[in-house]
Amino acid sequence: MTNTNNKPLILVTNDDGVNARGIKALYEMVKGLGEIYIVAPNRANSGKSNSITVEVPIRIRKIRDEEDLKVFSCKGTPVDCVKLALNKIVPRQPDFVVSGINHGANTSVSVLYSGTMGATIEGCLAGIPSVGFSLDSFASKVDFSQCVKYGRKIFENVVKNGLPKSICLNVNFPEGDIKGVRVCRQADGMWKEEFDHRTDPFGGDYYWLTGHFKNAEPHAEDTDESAIRNGYASVVPTQIDMTAHHVLENLKTWDYEVLD
Amino acid sequence: MTNTNNKPLILVTNDDGVNARGIKALYEMVKGLGEIYIVAPNRANSGKSNSITVEVPIRIRKIRDEEDLKVFSCKGTPVDCVKLALNKIVPRQPDFVVSGINHGANTSVSVLYSGTMGATIEGCLAGIPSVGFSLDSFASKVDFSQCVKYGRKIFENVVKNGLPKSICLNVNFPEGDIKGVRVCRQADGMWKEEFDHRTDPFGGDYYWLTGHFKNAEPHAEDTDESAIRNGYASVVPTQIDMTAHHVLENLKTWDYEVLD
Repeated sequence: MTNTNNKPLILVTNDDGVNARGIKALYEMVKGLGEIYIVAPNRANSGKSNSITVEVPIRIRKIRDEEDLKVFSCKGTPVDCVKLALNKIVPRQPDFVVSGINHGANTSVSVLYSGTMGATIEGCLAGIPSVGFSLDSFASKVDFSQCVKYGRKIFENVVKNGLPKSICLNVNFPEGDIKGVRVCRQADGMWKEEFDHRTDPFGGDYYWLTGHFKNAEPHAEDTDESAIRNGYASVVPTQIDMTAHHVLENLKTWDYEVLD
Repeated sequence: MTNTNNKPLILVTNDDGVNARGIKALYEMVKGLGEIYIVAPNRANSGKSNSITVEVPIRIRKIRDEEDLKVFSCKGTPVDCVKLALNKIVPRQPDFVVSGINHGANTSVSVLYSGTMGATIEGCLAGIPSVGFSLDSFASKVDFSQCVKYGRKIFENVVKNGLPKSICLNVNFPEGDIKGVRVCRQADGMWKEEFDHRTDPFGGDYYWLTGHFKNAEPHAEDTDESAIRNGYASVVPTQIDMTAHHVLENLKTWDYEVLD
């Protein structure tokens, strides 16, 4: 665990698991830009958000050890991976955290459910410039080459300029050819859930969560959803502070007096 | 599943599980204010954030059925509980969602990891005025009576005034006597992790996640952390939009041109 070079240290993670095609594409994206540590879940962790593992211990296994590439498989959530990497694996504080490339978009409110962005936010909380990347496709053989090219360009900007404190980037790619990059805001929208209700062989009910995303502002042009629908990569600066500062004064006018 | 009265419908959930003392206190807080549906995890779900269950089906069991109180136990995360409740359990869209009372504070960045706030945010995403309540104590026999009193007053304000679109409340109580209520912003801070490294009987390494919260601005007086440290209940308006709007223009000046 000694630092024998002055290259930037880049921590790479994801939520689809250490063997996903997307994390291999992410490695291609940052290859050559520093010393790379991949610390990723041993299996798919979609929809894990910022969740952490508190009730069972976390296990970790080194599966590759080369000069500029170390790979670890972690039996935990994406956020566990980042926490464990920062505390127990990397020889020094990483210069950058990158997460992805997720199989499936994390635009709009999906930022809240996303394990890819959970890991990115965790890097940001640790004071490290962090970027999450997602591709709007679940196709197992989808082509990541355009994402690698545009993602690297975006990442080079982060290497050059850094990121403001407590702000990370949520990058989403459209499927197919990419026309360019748009800096956007998070679209307003929600997942409309449907549940597939079934009965097990013993008479018990169970439900599979399904659903589809509904954009609440399909005609807005400055959102991440609009960008990827029109063939552009979206870059949303995403902040840790969730305070709705603009309503603080109004809430202060409420009556909070409790009479005994 | 018919609506036989005009009382407000209040959906109650938590992350500590349907049998936790905190959710019983929360029921006391809202009792008499409407028709109450409790839909909560069958077991503790701390640290589950906004996570959803996608790889296994969700099971649900009705465990109580009275005129103004229905109770369901759900084998899923807090967010699963809210989604399933809204889609499959309640007879109409709830008027309010309340979550908690969590055993342990969810101030500052803990809002990001909290299952209590995950459920609250899920209610907010569905367009329902939603409030999460947490008490700064893990003591199993802690007294919730002050929380019930102050929480009810806060909740009565929400009943009277509603909440702005896409904004929910994150309420935290100090342990012991409560001096009053402060409307605050989320404190800047982070969890400093430590991992307890052990070896199993078969020679395998494993890690338990532990840690302590570090307030990055201990002298600020307008934060939730400051409020509960000084004996006040904190109310933080919490928004779904995580876009850092103030840096959009700066990021637009970056060079995104990809040369073929």
